[in-house]
Amino acid sequence: MKTRAAVAWEAGKPLSIETIDIEGPKPGEVLVEVMATGICHTDAYTLSGADPEGLFPAILGHEGAGIVREVGAGVTSLKVGDHVIPLYTPECRQCKTCLSQRSNLCTAIRATQGKGVMPDGTSRFRCDTPRVAGSTSNAIMHYMGCSTFANFTVLPEIALAKVREDAPFDVICYIGCGVTTGIGAVVNTAKVWPGATVAVFGLGGIGLNVIQGAKLVGADKIIGVDINPGREAMAREFGMTHFVNPDSVGRDKVIQAIQDLTDGGADFSFECVGNTNLMRQALECTHRGWGTSIIIGVAASGQEISTRPFQLVTGRNWRGTAFGGARGRTDVPRIVDWYMEGKIRIDPLITHRLKLDEINTGFDLMHKGESIRSVVIY
Amino acid sequence: MKTRAAVAWEAGKPLSIETIDIEGPKPGEVLVEVMATGICHTDAYTLSGADPEGLFPAILGHEGAGIVREVGAGVTSLKVGDHVIPLYTPECRQCKTCLSQRSNLCTAIRATQGKGVMPDGTSRFRCDTPRVAGSTSNAIMHYMGCSTFANFTVLPEIALAKVREDAPFDVICYIGCGVTTGIGAVVNTAKVWPGATVAVFGLGGIGLNVIQGAKLVGADKIIGVDINPGREAMAREFGMTHFVNPDSVGRDKVIQAIQDLTDGGADFSFECVGNTNLMRQALECTHRGWGTSIIIGVAASGQEISTRPFQLVTGRNWRGTAFGGARGRTDVPRIVDWYMEGKIRIDPLITHRLKLDEINTGFDLMHKGESIRSVVIY
Repeated sequence: MKTRAAVAWEAGKPLSIETIDIEGPKPGEVLVEVMATGICHTDAYTLSGADPEGLFPAILGHEGAGIVREVGAGVTSLKVGDHVIPLYTPECRQCKTCLSQRSNLCTAIRATQGKGVMPDGTSRFRCDTPRVAGSTSNAIMHYMGCSTFANFTVLPEIALAKVREDAPFDVICYIGCGVTTGIGAVVNTAKVWPGATVAVFGLGGIGLNVIQGAKLVGADKIIGVDINPGREAMAREFGMTHFVNPDSVGRDKVIQAIQDLTDGGADFSFECVGNTNLMRQALECTHRGWGTSIIIGVAASGQEISTRPFQLVTGRNWRGTAFGGARGRTDVPRIVDWYMEGKIRIDPLITHRLKLDEINTGFDLMHKGESIRSVVIY
Repeated sequence: MKTRAAVAWEAGKPLSIETIDIEGPKPGEVLVEVMATGICHTDAYTLSGADPEGLFPAILGHEGAGIVREVGAGVTSLKVGDHVIPLYTPECRQCKTCLSQRSNLCTAIRATQGKGVMPDGTSRFRCDTPRVAGSTSNAIMHYMGCSTFANFTVLPEIALAKVREDAPFDVICYIGCGVTTGIGAVVNTAKVWPGATVAVFGLGGIGLNVIQGAKLVGADKIIGVDINPGREAMAREFGMTHFVNPDSVGRDKVIQAIQDLTDGGADFSFECVGNTNLMRQALECTHRGWGTSIIIGVAASGQEISTRPFQLVTGRNWRGTAFGGARGRTDVPRIVDWYMEGKIRIDPLITHRLKLDEINTGFDLMHKGESIRSVVIY
């Protein structure tokens, strides 16, 4: 069959809206009609060419929501008509990592996912004729196992979270990445306790979700750090209690400012930018003895974090999180419920709704800092 | 009164055996007759002059055991005749950190201890006349709040663990630092679980105590890493199951060797050397998703640890420990019990017993790598 899609033919170029071929689901696979997809910084990172693991041509997009239209042989947990959120971190419930119950980083399909193909080693997407100079292949790669920048996509059964049918696609698609990453980092990875003090570096979409996660679990002080004063108002709406602007207090005085606000340091900190200098500040602003700092942001390739070991020997804890430590099929439906029950807010974060033809505008808005989240509605 | 002591008059010089004045205990303080003291690398580090916080003249030593000979006003938890182990990490049970129940790093007397004085801001040790060029003071500084290189010393009540009276001083003094640091890192900080895989970098005294701690809690594989093949036999006696010599497998292949032995990485690793390159290896050899690496060794001043943030984002956990996360007055008596009950072994680690006059020989043995622990018996 055919699907409309935004194809990334090569790095550094705008996406191209095409009608391409998509093959139906093989055993264990599911055909999904994508109803909406968010545009995330990770898509832009790969599209830019800076991602050393980026493959082209590819159909990017990993933050979607849709409806099951066809299931392959052996699929038992999903049926036609189910509403689903694609999972770039699957949950097979059978691999060493899933069975460890200590991590969400399921390894069942990691190798093929990293190569842009389905678990059988092939792609379901192709164009009529090879379009890339020097290539004789007409295959188009999958991306993060999702490829939600296509109206129809194919995923393994283990990479789909079944969600309630009354939830709006153009909002819950954001749960497929940003919302779960931010809230999950608080709830699953850090396990922030009621009464805790929390510092959040970067008040973009992830930071706002960390803030509402910290509020949800009863943190006392939620300190936001950002050089953009325009982000203060929304952050306060989401639960931020104190704002530290590094350009106001002095960029080398951020740690001191947070320690002053927290009687010695934050119980928890979250780096939501991907800046290795901020990662160090985030660690060092936490409390001696028990402070935990969680890295969420993705640093540029090759960059490293550093600190004096004394920071750790005196009781600080340096960790990271991917997809908020959430087990996709187990935790994502719960976060959709939280949204529907009003426990968390997403609507104010969806700042732009676009058609597929306008997807490059969505990237432009993000690069200019004019959007929190742009969503493409098919 | 007078006490015999090994005085560090200045950095880089041998200790000098002297008879000096010691003042009796002030309110909240206790006079202890030190019966035995270990010689630790930290004493050597400070004596060398490399420790930027080192103060001179001072009475070093922090790994002792002795008997209470006099108590100051208001002391309620100790009486004359009690057997005690001095604690460089005190336990006041009243400060924010003690009350947090999340850390052993009591802050009650931190400021004065760092300045080489008792909580009232003065020293209890002095010589007859100023002996340091350019100084008019005859005070001699305390060290780490302990100063066990003196036959009599004074400590705050909160810095003494009361222990059973049938335990031999010349063995349990080692519990005052090395034994508790190693075993405590496993039990209190890492909370190694039964069946875990453990990698231990450095098979000196701390490493051997980490190994016996890991054995105590039921670890499955205990992998020791050391460039000195002479350390293998003793480590196996203490519970090591596999030995990796970086000079045999290749210094850049240590991580791979550990991953091969553990199906992807150790659940826990411990750096017991103080080498920042090993700290990085120790982190990166742990298992994706949940591996925890604990820094025990003290790096040289100014050195930093580094890694790619990806290591943390994919689920590794970088931590440190001081005094094995042990609350001194609560946990140290329990470790003495463990020794007396045969749950842990210390005797084979005490390789040399010296008189106070021979204390510089103890430092020489350590520098030459010929001792595990030398103990001075008064």
